[in-house]
Amino acid sequence: MSVDMYRITEQPYYRPVGDEVALYEAAYRHRIPVMLKGPTGSGKTRFVEYMAWRLARPLITVAAHEDMTAADLAGRFLLEPGRTVWHDGPVTLAVRHGAICYLDEIVEARQDTTVVIHPLTDARRMLPLEKRNEILAAHPDFQLVISYNPGYQSAVKDLKESTKQRFVAIDFVYPPPAIEQEIVMRESGVDASDARLLVEIATRSRNLRGQGLDEGASTRMLVHAGRLLVAGVRPAAAVDAAIVLPMTDDAEMRAALRDAIAACL
Amino acid sequence: MSVDMYRITEQPYYRPVGDEVALYEAAYRHRIPVMLKGPTGSGKTRFVEYMAWRLARPLITVAAHEDMTAADLAGRFLLEPGRTVWHDGPVTLAVRHGAICYLDEIVEARQDTTVVIHPLTDARRMLPLEKRNEILAAHPDFQLVISYNPGYQSAVKDLKESTKQRFVAIDFVYPPPAIEQEIVMRESGVDASDARLLVEIATRSRNLRGQGLDEGASTRMLVHAGRLLVAGVRPAAAVDAAIVLPMTDDAEMRAALRDAIAACL
Amino acid sequence: MSVDMYRITEQPYYRPVGDEVALYEAAYRHRIPVMLKGPTGSGKTRFVEYMAWRLARPLITVAAHEDMTAADLAGRFLLEPGRTVWHDGPVTLAVRHGAICYLDEIVEARQDTTVVIHPLTDARRMLPLEKRNEILAAHPDFQLVISYNPGYQSAVKDLKESTKQRFVAIDFVYPPPAIEQEIVMRESGVDASDARLLVEIATRSRNLRGQGLDEGASTRMLVHAGRLLVAGVRPAAAVDAAIVLPMTDDAEMRAALRDAIAACL
Amino acid sequence: MSVDMYRITEQPYYRPVGDEVALYEAAYRHRIPVMLKGPTGSGKTRFVEYMAWRLARPLITVAAHEDMTAADLAGRFLLEPGRTVWHDGPVTLAVRHGAICYLDEIVEARQDTTVVIHPLTDARRMLPLEKRNEILAAHPDFQLVISYNPGYQSAVKDLKESTKQRFVAIDFVYPPPAIEQEIVMRESGVDASDARLLVEIATRSRNLRGQGLDEGASTRMLVHAGRLLVAGVRPAAAVDAAIVLPMTDDAEMRAALRDAIAACL
Amino acid sequence: MSVDMYRITEQPYYRPVGDEVALYEAAYRHRIPVMLKGPTGSGKTRFVEYMAWRLARPLITVAAHEDMTAADLAGRFLLEPGRTVWHDGPVTLAVRHGAICYLDEIVEARQDTTVVIHPLTDARRMLPLEKRNEILAAHPDFQLVISYNPGYQSAVKDLKESTKQRFVAIDFVYPPPAIEQEIVMRESGVDASDARLLVEIATRSRNLRGQGLDEGASTRMLVHAGRLLVAGVRPAAAVDAAIVLPMTDDAEMRAALRDAIAACL
Amino acid sequence: MSVDMYRITEQPYYRPVGDEVALYEAAYRHRIPVMLKGPTGSGKTRFVEYMAWRLARPLITVAAHEDMTAADLAGRFLLEPGRTVWHDGPVTLAVRHGAICYLDEIVEARQDTTVVIHPLTDARRMLPLEKRNEILAAHPDFQLVISYNPGYQSAVKDLKESTKQRFVAIDFVYPPPAIEQEIVMRESGVDASDARLLVEIATRSRNLRGQGLDEGASTRMLVHAGRLLVAGVRPAAAVDAAIVLPMTDDAEMRAALRDAIAACL
Repeated sequence: MSVDMYRITEQPYYRPVGDEVALYEAAYRHRIPVMLKGPTGSGKTRFVEYMAWRLARPLITVAAHEDMTAADLAGRFLLEPGRTVWHDGPVTLAVRHGAICYLDEIVEARQDTTVVIHPLTDARRMLPLEKRNEILAAHPDFQLVISYNPGYQSAVKDLKESTKQRFVAIDFVYPPPAIEQEIVMRESGVDASDARLLVEIATRSRNLRGQGLDEGASTRMLVHAGRLLVAGVRPAAAVDAAIVLPMTDDAEMRAALRDAIAACL
Repeated sequence: MSVDMYRITEQPYYRPVGDEVALYEAAYRHRIPVMLKGPTGSGKTRFVEYMAWRLARPLITVAAHEDMTAADLAGRFLLEPGRTVWHDGPVTLAVRHGAICYLDEIVEARQDTTVVIHPLTDARRMLPLEKRNEILAAHPDFQLVISYNPGYQSAVKDLKESTKQRFVAIDFVYPPPAIEQEIVMRESGVDASDARLLVEIATRSRNLRGQGLDEGASTRMLVHAGRLLVAGVRPAAAVDAAIVLPMTDDAEMRAALRDAIAACL
Repeated sequence: MSVDMYRITEQPYYRPVGDEVALYEAAYRHRIPVMLKGPTGSGKTRFVEYMAWRLARPLITVAAHEDMTAADLAGRFLLEPGRTVWHDGPVTLAVRHGAICYLDEIVEARQDTTVVIHPLTDARRMLPLEKRNEILAAHPDFQLVISYNPGYQSAVKDLKESTKQRFVAIDFVYPPPAIEQEIVMRESGVDASDARLLVEIATRSRNLRGQGLDEGASTRMLVHAGRLLVAGVRPAAAVDAAIVLPMTDDAEMRAALRDAIAACL
Repeated sequence: MSVDMYRITEQPYYRPVGDEVALYEAAYRHRIPVMLKGPTGSGKTRFVEYMAWRLARPLITVAAHEDMTAADLAGRFLLEPGRTVWHDGPVTLAVRHGAICYLDEIVEARQDTTVVIHPLTDARRMLPLEKRNEILAAHPDFQLVISYNPGYQSAVKDLKESTKQRFVAIDFVYPPPAIEQEIVMRESGVDASDARLLVEIATRSRNLRGQGLDEGASTRMLVHAGRLLVAGVRPAAAVDAAIVLPMTDDAEMRAALRDAIAACL
Repeated sequence: MSVDMYRITEQPYYRPVGDEVALYEAAYRHRIPVMLKGPTGSGKTRFVEYMAWRLARPLITVAAHEDMTAADLAGRFLLEPGRTVWHDGPVTLAVRHGAICYLDEIVEARQDTTVVIHPLTDARRMLPLEKRNEILAAHPDFQLVISYNPGYQSAVKDLKESTKQRFVAIDFVYPPPAIEQEIVMRESGVDASDARLLVEIATRSRNLRGQGLDEGASTRMLVHAGRLLVAGVRPAAAVDAAIVLPMTDDAEMRAALRDAIAACL
Repeated sequence: MSVDMYRITEQPYYRPVGDEVALYEAAYRHRIPVMLKGPTGSGKTRFVEYMAWRLARPLITVAAHEDMTAADLAGRFLLEPGRTVWHDGPVTLAVRHGAICYLDEIVEARQDTTVVIHPLTDARRMLPLEKRNEILAAHPDFQLVISYNPGYQSAVKDLKESTKQRFVAIDFVYPPPAIEQEIVMRESGVDASDARLLVEIATRSRNLRGQGLDEGASTRMLVHAGRLLVAGVRPAAAVDAAIVLPMTDDAEMRAALRDAIAACL
């Protein structure tokens, strides 16, 4: 598989909020592994796409899940007609060709992924592929990036200390209103006034976080609402479909959200 | 496999209740993923069939279950005589050929289905088929639809926030009496008076919801009762067989239901 | 596999208790799925055999168990020398050839069986065989029947509402004494007096249900006791071996049962 | 596999205690399935060997365990060089050739064994071998026997009512002293006086059952002690090694047992 | 595989403590299965090696673990180029060639190992290899030995009564001081004075058992400490590395141990 | 696979803290297995690399994880075109060629790894490869080393006593300030003043251990912070990214850490 498939050819739209770009570049200079922390839809994935474009490195993204094992990352032998063929997993591909490898919500994966992550994130920078009789030294350009949503973690599902301490971390929060408004306009096509309204709604929903909502409305939801508006849906219906209904099934919580929203519309 | 197998050639009977058709069309215009929320038998499956027919898109439906994995959705290699052949899963088929893919009760599936759903429901709109060395860009007509029954969810089995926020939602409730009566007549062949009676019975059963019943009688049950009536079964026996007995085994609850029903018959 | 293997060529002995035969025929006329509810040994299996004979349809019975998966029902590819051969599972066989398919104690099976049951029990009446690239439309004669023992169900193991509401239900209880006596005579060969005695014993054991016994003696147990009598075993020993000892290991409960029985012998 | 391998050519030593032989013969005459109930080492296995010899039927014994599945009983396809060969499991072998099939401690097995047991233990007397496309009618001589230790059962691990009610039961307890003494002499070679002593010791240990011991000393243990005596081990050491040490690790319980025993030696 | 590989050609060093050698020989004469009971490092493994050498039988040792199944013991078919070859497991090898088979900490293994152990430990002395269509009668010299650490057992993980009662048992405790001193000198090369010191330390650690320590220092640990002394490590450091640090991570417990030890050094 | 791949050709930087080098050499002289105990990032891995270099032995490192089984360590047969090839696992490779085998965080692995570890860590020093019909005597230079983080262990996940007692242990703690400063300078390139500052920060974070932090900042984290400083990141931002953010997500804990750090900057 050519790694060129993973090159990002067009500049992704990313609106920096603080000094995260400089910090990432400093970490990449020393190839220090990076952990992106923050809630759903706060821009972690877009940021790493932007950095990969900026650093002109291919980006290989893997969404972790609770059945994901080390072999899913490293690769495996597949039976083909008349022969057995090794198939590089996404991490191996990145290690071999010098891509940035982004493991999204890594904490969801099975613990045996440790055997892939640890030797790549200390002085060794190598990936043992025992089934292939190969110890793969990481390409000089390779870097490992993981994401982590602090709101999700529990005692049973958390990164081990010995994993956490291998990464420098960058915190992601929702962008300040002026920037978020700029993003919504650009991504959905609504005008400034609708975008400001949607951001105001998001802010109100985020204030309800911890009072019955696990998370507030993400920027992504605002973009959905904006697109429904552009397609001609009434504002109240668009906000309901894109923000209120997906967020909660609790009748009281929905009422509270709709009250907060009605004040804006 | 030809995707034409999945075309809906006859208009399915669907009786709109509110502005759900327009809202869905707005979402489809931007290919925003849609989540249908509502109780058993409230018409979610019929609605998506109707929309697929209306939009002239093939519809690929998958009933999720707790053993369903990403490979069940994406596909796998099968051994055939003398060779190994890739077999597209239902989601891949939909992505490749521009069908609407409907994942029914997705919350039942294993969490690794996230690797299939996430990259298809954000700006990327792509499906990584690692085992095939292929990143499949979604056909422009492809759309993902999921259903979700809020009454079922628990702390252990719920969609992750990072999944929920990728969808706009449409709420389904039982139709208002006049519309439900129209549906029952049409689907079972009973006359208006029997249909009105059955809807009245359903309303009474739904009032018992939360007082010992998990759900009230669905429209589907009324249709069953109607068909038994048409086949000559006595009303009390038909309602018992189609509504009371399937809903509960609790003697007191059955008595309460039968009392409520007797008042109608 | 020829479905003729599953034809019932001799009339099974079934003694109707109420209007269950007519109700089943009405349901079958519209091919509405049927759920048989009732305790162990109350005649559910015999009833469905009788109906299959009466309707002249082949009957394919599957005893569900907690390791049973959708593939056990639908079928799978088997490796044969030099080739891979699809093997229809029992449900597929029934769907393809128009048999009645009886899933006994379906609640025991794994939840992925939903993917087989749901599309067969709504308007679609079809079975998606994804591994075969086939959507199998049900033969016009096909009907699905399931059984369910309400005494067994618990919060963890129950049918989902969205499954239950797809069936009309028929309740089974032990037959009234005169009918049960008739059955015992016919099945075991005892005379009327012994049969009356055995039914009296059964009634007494059923009165102890809920006072330390999960279920009372089934008609099947009475037949066993009758056959031991016919083979020359003393009444007390026959009743002990066929009824008391299998039902409970609790010394006090056994004493209570034996007391109740002694009064009859 | 020839079923002759399973014929019992020499009369096994079995000392009847009550009318169990006659009762078993009556059950076998009607091929009613039999359940042997009783504690460890009370002679259940020896009894079924004796009955198989007496009835001149081959005996196929299977020790159930918690990983045992239906396929372990029914059989499976095995890959052989250049072909796939069906291999009858022990139950299938018995069903096909008319053996007595003895499932020892069946309650330990996985619940899917129900699919094998149920159709063999009702009027159908058949074994569906779906993977082979075969419905195997039981050989007229076939009979199913299971064993069950009431002392072991718990709420989580018990036979289902619908299984229990398919069997007539025979209770096993330890033999009365005179008979047990006869057995110990014959099996271990000790003289009457030593055998009487060992039986006295067993009786005392059985009195401690429920006071810290799960079970008392079995006849098997007495035979072990007798053999150690015959090999020249001192009585106290032989009884300690064969009875006290295997039964408990609790220091106080051991002291109590040794006190009870010392009074005999 | 030649069983000669398993012959013990040099006399293992074993220092008898009581009449365990004679008792084992008596059991072996009748081929009664033997259970060795005792704490970690009390010499169970060395004893069985010594007895195998003394009786001139090959010894096949298997360390049980919680993933160990019956097939690990009995054997399995392995795919080889162009054919499938049966591979005897360790128990089968011992049964076929008349070795002593030692299952170390058998209670750790999965319960399906019962199917291997039971028919080998009663009058049958046979091993059913169903996959091979073979009932293997045990070689006349075969004997089964198991070990069991009473300190480890819990309600969830214990041998079944029906297994326990098949074995005569030999208890192992730490040897008396004079003998243990002799063992430490011989195995580590320290002089009498250092060995006495180490045994004194062990005795003190064993007194702390149950006061925060699961087990006291084993003879094995004393040998390790002795060897470090011989290699020139300071006594306090050697005892710390070989005894204190491996036994506990609790700061208070370590202090208590070091206090007890300091009094000796 | 050539074991030369595992030779360490350049002297790893390791700064001894106490007499650990001499103790390890004494243990290695007798090939006594060694257990390295200590928190994350306290230098256990670097130490074993240093010792392997010093002793001129290849070093094979395996990061244990909860899905790791004995076969992962010992090896397995792999299917290759037209044949089946045995593939030595990492432990077997080390045993065969005389490498030091380092099992990192072994307590994470599945318990069946015991079958590999036990026979290699007692007088036998052998590895039974049953699938290969081979008992592999360890190369004279082979040694087994494991690591263990006492802070992680719980009742459910701990080494068995019978495993622990096979190792001598070396305790690792964070190095004293002067030495840690030396390490940070050398590994990150910061000057003495920045290194002293970072060590002071680490000390303060370690004082918060047990007051809401599972572990304090490791030396590795200080090196990360140092490298960010060298790359031009502001001190507060570097310390935040490398130390504060990865360690905790708790707002109060972060504030406490930042307060403690602010006093240093």
